[in-house]
Amino acid sequence: MAQTTGTIHGVGLGPGAQDLLSVRADRLVRNAKHVAFFRKAGRPGQARRIVNGMLADTAIEFPMEYPVTTEIPLTDPRYNQIMSAFYTDCTAHLRRLAEGGEDVVVLCEGDPFFYGSFMHLYTRLEPHVPVEVVPAITGMSGAWTATGAPITWGDDILTILMGTLDEDTLVHRMGQADALVVMKIGRNIDKVRSALKRAGKFEDAYLIEYAAMPNQNVQKLCEAEGKVTPYFSIIVVHGQGRRP
Amino acid sequence: MAQTTGTIHGVGLGPGAQDLLSVRADRLVRNAKHVAFFRKAGRPGQARRIVNGMLADTAIEFPMEYPVTTEIPLTDPRYNQIMSAFYTDCTAHLRRLAEGGEDVVVLCEGDPFFYGSFMHLYTRLEPHVPVEVVPAITGMSGAWTATGAPITWGDDILTILMGTLDEDTLVHRMGQADALVVMKIGRNIDKVRSALKRAGKFEDAYLIEYAAMPNQNVQKLCEAEGKVTPYFSIIVVHGQGRRP
Repeated sequence: MAQTTGTIHGVGLGPGAQDLLSVRADRLVRNAKHVAFFRKAGRPGQARRIVNGMLADTAIEFPMEYPVTTEIPLTDPRYNQIMSAFYTDCTAHLRRLAEGGEDVVVLCEGDPFFYGSFMHLYTRLEPHVPVEVVPAITGMSGAWTATGAPITWGDDILTILMGTLDEDTLVHRMGQADALVVMKIGRNIDKVRSALKRAGKFEDAYLIEYAAMPNQNVQKLCEAEGKVTPYFSIIVVHGQGRRP
Repeated sequence: MAQTTGTIHGVGLGPGAQDLLSVRADRLVRNAKHVAFFRKAGRPGQARRIVNGMLADTAIEFPMEYPVTTEIPLTDPRYNQIMSAFYTDCTAHLRRLAEGGEDVVVLCEGDPFFYGSFMHLYTRLEPHVPVEVVPAITGMSGAWTATGAPITWGDDILTILMGTLDEDTLVHRMGQADALVVMKIGRNIDKVRSALKRAGKFEDAYLIEYAAMPNQNVQKLCEAEGKVTPYFSIIVVHGQGRRP
């Protein structure tokens, strides 16, 4: 009998609460025989932490440890070389599993196609083996929900910026935005704070840490002076559009 | 014994597939005694349709029928007056239920705080009775997942535009965008098409109809000449950022 190729499932887990997984994701995670996830070396990994207690006792885990995170700047050509080799290695393992008939669930924080590492596996796997993607609640939806106020009204334009951008780009785009989300904060917080001030949006900005998790924290950014905050923190400025 | 005030739950249903509801939303919908939802007069309503077969037989339904949709232009002052009176009426009914001790689930397409009608109830209810919001997978996540390609890479800036904006604004913002989502297409499709051409993005644009639903349809916009498409269709242009 011909062997059936397995499927790689890129499963979005959402912002961090187990009951904010989709019904489809919940089912895939609980029934998974093989589970893969990214993590920083020496850390449990945020995606793996979200599913604590959900995996079968017999699940086989494949942690994919980033060879570098912030040790080499993104602009250094070695960064791309090292990361590319890493993604190629991970892909080879997942592809072998699928070609051996095994399904694999790749755990993804947030939504897999929205600024996630999974997309680097996806583009490498997709020409060779079946890959299915389960969309999820984005971290930013978790963040604006935590603020208790809608992010966009009427025809508001929503701009989503990465804190890793240079300050002048941030200022220019923030100045034009109706509603604004800034992701990847962490060590970029001082630059983002300065850009928001220059763009006249600082007083309206909220900092959300650990959205949808038990230690969720929401505060006005102007009341968080000197704060050290995780990479996954999110800053939002709400739109003020038409509201009957 | 003092009566406990009920809670109004604004429950995001996601893009349209039942198994893309979150576990939390699924539980609330299946156990709801009171269910409210918006719809156009004479139509079943998209939110209500998503939960077909999920509601308890004894659930009490409260359809909230828009008094106008496209009959009066948004710029006409009567539009805001009529819609404001409508939202106030809906709020009064929901508030009476909550004050009588009843919980109510308000069904919301997509994510409740992201361009939804629920926010107009939320701001009116929230000062008076407990309101809880369940975030959800946005329609746009459903749309970019349907294209089979990630929407954003690296530091891509994502711009989200409404098709209801004027053409010059669309052109200006499209021209600056790395990655682009245009919502509320429907009768705006010719204007959006023209704006994408002027901004040099037409050839890269995808039109997604009924994302995550059985009749999902994805095509290059340039291959959809003359197409009549629903209001909830979404156009995306993928980012091309850094990819190791």
